[in-house]
Amino acid sequence: MKVLGIDPGSLVTGYGIIFSEDQTPHYLTHGLIKMRANVSLSDRLGKVFEGVVRIIDEYQPDILAIEKVFFAKNPHSALMLGQARGVALLPGVLKNVRICEYTPLEVKQSIVGYGRATKQQVKEMVMRLLSIREDMTYDASDALAVGICCLQHLQGGLSKRGIT
Amino acid sequence: MKVLGIDPGSLVTGYGIIFSEDQTPHYLTHGLIKMRANVSLSDRLGKVFEGVVRIIDEYQPDILAIEKVFFAKNPHSALMLGQARGVALLPGVLKNVRICEYTPLEVKQSIVGYGRATKQQVKEMVMRLLSIREDMTYDASDALAVGICCLQHLQGGLSKRGIT
Repeated sequence: MKVLGIDPGSLVTGYGIIFSEDQTPHYLTHGLIKMRANVSLSDRLGKVFEGVVRIIDEYQPDILAIEKVFFAKNPHSALMLGQARGVALLPGVLKNVRICEYTPLEVKQSIVGYGRATKQQVKEMVMRLLSIREDMTYDASDALAVGICCLQHLQGGLSKRGIT
Repeated sequence: MKVLGIDPGSLVTGYGIIFSEDQTPHYLTHGLIKMRANVSLSDRLGKVFEGVVRIIDEYQPDILAIEKVFFAKNPHSALMLGQARGVALLPGVLKNVRICEYTPLEVKQSIVGYGRATKQQVKEMVMRLLSIREDMTYDASDALAVGICCLQHLQGGLSKRGIT
């Protein structure tokens, strides 16, 4: 089972790919789709879409996992985030990849066991769970986190058993 | 010059196609991409995208005109609207159709001459400008309105000259 986790944003979209083997999540790759701020919004959206299309074509994930978002700082940033989120999950829809959505609370609880965990705590646990030593940005660790959360939900708490 | 105006929404996306001839906007077609509320959000986004792809393939517009949105009732509806807007304009980006964006104020001023015009006033003027007799929903009239606004901006107030 291979999961592509996506953390969309209007300037940086993080992604991470993991797979499960022996009931444990394993790391495959992660990266960022970066957009320049001086490029038009429509071109940035095109780049996010094409980036996710390429990732799906290359890694053929079974599932695309993404956070459900219910709120944002303000309606303007919600609109920006919504547009990025829409075009980031669209390649999964078009390519018949199963889409799984989790609330930020579910992701944090699943990774750290605490719904109010910080991004730093999530990142540290993601790196520990996946045996990653090299530091990464929160865009990437959040993407891997929603991927791990997805595997845990589908397979029943495997990661926690893996590290305790 | 053929313009596809789009009014995106998470349940109904309106579209309208107009073209300019003799410095006047002419009506070609309009319609709605409707989604059932009980379908998953990701499937609805896929349907909006595929609907706009089909419209572009069929009518080959030179420009895709869409409203710039800066605010919404609340962050939740902003997120929903943002996702629909992102996937609605994406086919234009991918097919190298020029994207033109106008604020709601610009659209209303351009159609009715008054930035606080109601949707009903906009619809009546759209139907008058395009000589449409059959009633339509606001989703369609708003889509045609942003298309007319676009032609006016590109050609310099042609519609107003056309009716005064």
